[in-house]
Amino acid sequence: MATPVSAPRGMRDFLPADKAKRERVLGVIRSTYAAHGFDEIETPVVEDFDRLHAGLGGDNEKLAFNVMKRGLAASDLAEAAATDDPDALADLGLRFDLTVPLARFYATHRAALPQVFRAVQIAPVWRAERPQKGRYRQFVQCDIDIIGEAGILAEIELLTATLATLDTLGLAGCRIRINDRRILFGVLDAFGFAADEHSSVLITVDKLDKVGTGGVIDELRSKGTTPAAVDALAAYFEQTSVTAEATPLTATTVAAALPEGVAPDAVTALASIGTALETAGVRGELVFDPFLVRGMGYYTGTIFEIEHPDFSFSLGGGGRYDGMIGRFLGEQVPACGFSIGFERIIDLIDDPAGAGTRSIVLVHDKAAEPERLLALKTQFVDRGERVRLERRTKNLAPLLDRAAASGFTHFALVGRDATRADDLELKELSAPE
Amino acid sequence: MATPVSAPRGMRDFLPADKAKRERVLGVIRSTYAAHGFDEIETPVVEDFDRLHAGLGGDNEKLAFNVMKRGLAASDLAEAAATDDPDALADLGLRFDLTVPLARFYATHRAALPQVFRAVQIAPVWRAERPQKGRYRQFVQCDIDIIGEAGILAEIELLTATLATLDTLGLAGCRIRINDRRILFGVLDAFGFAADEHSSVLITVDKLDKVGTGGVIDELRSKGTTPAAVDALAAYFEQTSVTAEATPLTATTVAAALPEGVAPDAVTALASIGTALETAGVRGELVFDPFLVRGMGYYTGTIFEIEHPDFSFSLGGGGRYDGMIGRFLGEQVPACGFSIGFERIIDLIDDPAGAGTRSIVLVHDKAAEPERLLALKTQFVDRGERVRLERRTKNLAPLLDRAAASGFTHFALVGRDATRADDLELKELSAPE
Repeated sequence: MATPVSAPRGMRDFLPADKAKRERVLGVIRSTYAAHGFDEIETPVVEDFDRLHAGLGGDNEKLAFNVMKRGLAASDLAEAAATDDPDALADLGLRFDLTVPLARFYATHRAALPQVFRAVQIAPVWRAERPQKGRYRQFVQCDIDIIGEAGILAEIELLTATLATLDTLGLAGCRIRINDRRILFGVLDAFGFAADEHSSVLITVDKLDKVGTGGVIDELRSKGTTPAAVDALAAYFEQTSVTAEATPLTATTVAAALPEGVAPDAVTALASIGTALETAGVRGELVFDPFLVRGMGYYTGTIFEIEHPDFSFSLGGGGRYDGMIGRFLGEQVPACGFSIGFERIIDLIDDPAGAGTRSIVLVHDKAAEPERLLALKTQFVDRGERVRLERRTKNLAPLLDRAAASGFTHFALVGRDATRADDLELKELSAPE
Repeated sequence: MATPVSAPRGMRDFLPADKAKRERVLGVIRSTYAAHGFDEIETPVVEDFDRLHAGLGGDNEKLAFNVMKRGLAASDLAEAAATDDPDALADLGLRFDLTVPLARFYATHRAALPQVFRAVQIAPVWRAERPQKGRYRQFVQCDIDIIGEAGILAEIELLTATLATLDTLGLAGCRIRINDRRILFGVLDAFGFAADEHSSVLITVDKLDKVGTGGVIDELRSKGTTPAAVDALAAYFEQTSVTAEATPLTATTVAAALPEGVAPDAVTALASIGTALETAGVRGELVFDPFLVRGMGYYTGTIFEIEHPDFSFSLGGGGRYDGMIGRFLGEQVPACGFSIGFERIIDLIDDPAGAGTRSIVLVHDKAAEPERLLALKTQFVDRGERVRLERRTKNLAPLLDRAAASGFTHFALVGRDATRADDLELKELSAPE
């Protein structure tokens, strides 16, 4: 008896129907980003251990799968045991995101890249997380990044390309929540939070969606945060409707939603982004959210998240992270990025398999001569049709059901003497339920 | 000063022009295989350590990159040091081929797959080889396999689909060298080589291309192989033209090229394959090569290699390996596969970047308003054209050269007041040299 065999823990195989859908959706994403002037690049799935652990990956660094050095000797193992440092045995690691590899790629190839580089990366990443529903140890990320553009043209192009992609995928009508880290910190300062409280306050504010304004105030008080600042925030929550209603992205509305004088440059920039997208007729609503935090510490300016009215989770997000891409170069290089949550959206997309093209299953007897079957198959292929030979099973229904689920549209029973494709009677397969 | 930064040793980054070409070529391969009725699947890049080291991978098992267990303690390290067994610290490994994962996939999902399963896998594999020109530690394999078909229909469909793919890629006029392991061993038996000499004799015979018949005989003699058998082989080399001329794949010519009575079933099968491809009008020459060996020990029947008259190396190869796919199931499952050498052919393919579609670079001043640029860009995108914004550099030539190399066909200088795409004067970019 064979024992049960499965893919490694927390990782997935993709069977034909799923794989075909993923490739079709990735094809749409690729071609839309290409149309918007982005260039796809690819890096190896592993990076040198030291690059992955240079502090650019935040908490994800702890989740890296490490690849062992080749040719380890007993002395290496003894040394690692003596210092209790398994990491000393690794010289490579599977990437946990596409941003660290992008920074490394940019440092390696900068001379060959345009001054403003618009990159697409569509590729798997690996994280040793505890496997749970909807969270996998290998998953695909779709990132676009604009490197070398300090102005809001970067944000504008990223948002436009992303909205166009989601639109093409049938996820029209998205709402973008947008904020700026400078506004976030400006607001905290205005209320009187101490600088060393900022991180802790942001962790709490990030829960606004879940616990509401009351919950945020309660948690801040229980943490012992500066009482006067918490009072000021509570008063602000009571006076404004910013957390309850969508604030349009204009200079007036953004400024009105904030304590006076907070981050005027950032306010102007956000308003200009709103104006540009509206002028260009980009579909999708932009709203200002002064309490949008986003977890990663590396953001330095605008931050954004995309939501869809039909779904409770975000479809993607990103922001400006000017301090990071130049790290391996020892320089400050402006950069802004956007990531679509591919594994989240793939299940939301309605994808009529093989729509538009006729594809045919030829059902034949076991005894049919191979050369005759090939000759028949070749005639269909030459017509530009997809065709598959299937040996007849006792019960035809499961065979045809599976063919329909794989995107085949027609079938024909191959008679004993059939040699011409035109002589076969094609019947439509009923669509799978 | 930053230190030089590069991709991990022996691995490659792909810049935009190369990445785009690779994706286009992979797209052609994918769609041709799909037209021929093959289904693409995907497995995780890592497999459980024990699966990778179950003896299905031959010498490649030694080249596996091992992934360390998570949460290793000093005691684990001490134990590994005591037994001098670094492998005890790994529970996963990067796959070194696509065949071991296919066997694992088939064992996991057999119930959901058709009785005869035609699989495509297009994916990277990793081998810790000494890096050298043209040999990389991460490279893409393109495999098709037919599982569950014991008859020659499998070989016929694999060869047809592969030749069609190469033809579509502009590599028409290929020659297939074909043999059968049963013929190979039958010939050795007929000449009187002892069964325990077979492996050693095959290693020498495999050098026929390089050292000629004289070199093979010399090496066999110097190895001390059964003298009478070597004499018989030498006489055979002198009597036949099989090594000098192409033997067509018919029952008469194949039988005539062999000592009498060798593997009659295999001879019939080869001839039928030849007839079927000829009847169907498949382009490409098939020749019988009784000394085609192919290295991997797991082949059990037909073996084949594809050559192109313009190139000295094979473009791909494969064969029947009935004993392997069922290993994790503990069953005998017939299987036959073909692999295109993607990293070899990618450089041979002439690929006019972006042929057929107009794509435009809009060159603008640094001071141009972002919202106006976006509005212009959007008009081109809406027309279905690829468009990229490029900030004007002092010297325009390098910018335009790089755009042409990236596949852009036209450019326009964006004036200070331009707001309509129709008002821009598009100029053709000269093709890169």
